[in-house]
Amino acid sequence: VPPYDPSYLLVVVDLVGIFVFAISGALVAVRRGFDLFGVLVLAGTTGLGGGFLRDVLIGATPPAALEDWRYLTVPLVAGLLTFVFHPTVGRMERVIDVFDAFGLSLFCVTGALKAVEYGLGPIPAALMGMVTGIGGGMVRDVLAGRPPVVFNSNLYATPALLGAAVAVGLDATSLPLGVVVIAGAGVCLVLRLLAMVLDWRAPLPHGPANV
Amino acid sequence: VPPYDPSYLLVVVDLVGIFVFAISGALVAVRRGFDLFGVLVLAGTTGLGGGFLRDVLIGATPPAALEDWRYLTVPLVAGLLTFVFHPTVGRMERVIDVFDAFGLSLFCVTGALKAVEYGLGPIPAALMGMVTGIGGGMVRDVLAGRPPVVFNSNLYATPALLGAAVAVGLDATSLPLGVVVIAGAGVCLVLRLLAMVLDWRAPLPHGPANV
Amino acid sequence: VPPYDPSYLLVVVDLVGIFVFAISGALVAVRRGFDLFGVLVLAGTTGLGGGFLRDVLIGATPPAALEDWRYLTVPLVAGLLTFVFHPTVGRMERVIDVFDAFGLSLFCVTGALKAVEYGLGPIPAALMGMVTGIGGGMVRDVLAGRPPVVFNSNLYATPALLGAAVAVGLDATSLPLGVVVIAGAGVCLVLRLLAMVLDWRAPLPHGPANV
Repeated sequence: VPPYDPSYLLVVVDLVGIFVFAISGALVAVRRGFDLFGVLVLAGTTGLGGGFLRDVLIGATPPAALEDWRYLTVPLVAGLLTFVFHPTVGRMERVIDVFDAFGLSLFCVTGALKAVEYGLGPIPAALMGMVTGIGGGMVRDVLAGRPPVVFNSNLYATPALLGAAVAVGLDATSLPLGVVVIAGAGVCLVLRLLAMVLDWRAPLPHGPANV
Repeated sequence: VPPYDPSYLLVVVDLVGIFVFAISGALVAVRRGFDLFGVLVLAGTTGLGGGFLRDVLIGATPPAALEDWRYLTVPLVAGLLTFVFHPTVGRMERVIDVFDAFGLSLFCVTGALKAVEYGLGPIPAALMGMVTGIGGGMVRDVLAGRPPVVFNSNLYATPALLGAAVAVGLDATSLPLGVVVIAGAGVCLVLRLLAMVLDWRAPLPHGPANV
Repeated sequence: VPPYDPSYLLVVVDLVGIFVFAISGALVAVRRGFDLFGVLVLAGTTGLGGGFLRDVLIGATPPAALEDWRYLTVPLVAGLLTFVFHPTVGRMERVIDVFDAFGLSLFCVTGALKAVEYGLGPIPAALMGMVTGIGGGMVRDVLAGRPPVVFNSNLYATPALLGAAVAVGLDATSLPLGVVVIAGAGVCLVLRLLAMVLDWRAPLPHGPANV
């Protein structure tokens, strides 16, 4: 096992992302009529699922989040808050989408940098960054019994992939970690917000899909 | 890899739990109109899925069950029996639910103790116990195309978490393994049976879930 | 980590299988109305998912495919081609099913032989061969929100299991690798084609499935 001592900055950034993602998972659970347990599990899997997927794929098991009470407490709190205040939280969906963009931006960078630390090359590391960013939402949607919204929304995964690629590229230079994180996350954040404002979408297939 | 030499008791207990879980998976498959292969796969994933999830998460790969013919034979037999006798088995659903409660109680304890053996702390180990108990059923439901019933039933995961916590707590004492297993599984079993009899449920969110 | 230096033959064989599987995933995505990103992800998970599942289960992480640009490029190209030419590709479904049979035959053999290299016994190795063959399609179906077609189609998993078993059996002899691959894949291919032509099916449960 390679030594993994994440800087304090990355941990804080991670926890904020987990909190926002957990809220989005908990909201979906409330709307499906799941009970408190279902809300907490969907909060947890949405907040932590992307990182778990990455950790299992790069062989970093058990996932660090499982051993760190902060990573377990944050989705629990997010789930409880959503459970209690969901009418208010639900009305703030636009605000949550903005926070979600922050979460995505942070996850794609921390995910990619962790993959680099575990010895992956630049392209797989950028892919792992994207998986970290979008994986939790995909697990949320599968558990909620719907196709992943990321397959059919305004641009979501592409900003994550590009932000992760920027972070991986800059990480190979002598720039300080803070700059790498801010640049990568910034690229993802700006692109994601633009995609939301301008409803940028990936192209759809042309012509009838003959079945 | 830490030395893992499960005591005979834990193996027997595990196999009984796998048998019961496999029946529940096979029944769902029969009701969905799956063929013999689908019935056997759903029997296998329901019976072994929770343990596989745990093993992948704690890094105990390949899962021990994959290397042990008993762990592969038991769900096969359970699936075949259900395939042939499903009208009878289906009428015994109440009885199966009771056996399922036994399976849950055994899995949450063996899952938690294996996580402890692999060096996880008490809280993650108890969570892994819960995952071992509920994971197979969640995989079953995802493969059958429905949201996990555990999100919306009378208390199921909570007894597993508490039973696992008791087992982890007692395992840190000098009590013999048999006592640890019986105490942890007993707590889970009693709570689960009470939840079934009294229809104990986790609270649902209040108010309308504005979409 | 055991030394894993797959022969050139196995790599080529793998890549052809990935290409065909990726097309089947991309076609499903087009028909679900997913966008370009969804098409590419479903192409990638269908093409690589079975191998990823196997690698995670046998502890061969990170999956070799993640580190090899050829394994990442092939599903990308397959996804793009399907995205653009899907009306033509869709009309070739019968042809694709035949190629899919080739893919299945190749995957079950390469998957089983990799499991043997990682120290699994004959039966788990044959099972891992089957998982490699059918896993990508199962991930595809779960992400597309439908029960895995393999649970309810003409024989698909059984030929893979038998082909994998033949490969594992012959691999234990002193026969050269090429013979092992051709024999195992040949058994799977012939059985799968016969199942398609004669619509061989696994038996369905008898009698009403009382719910």
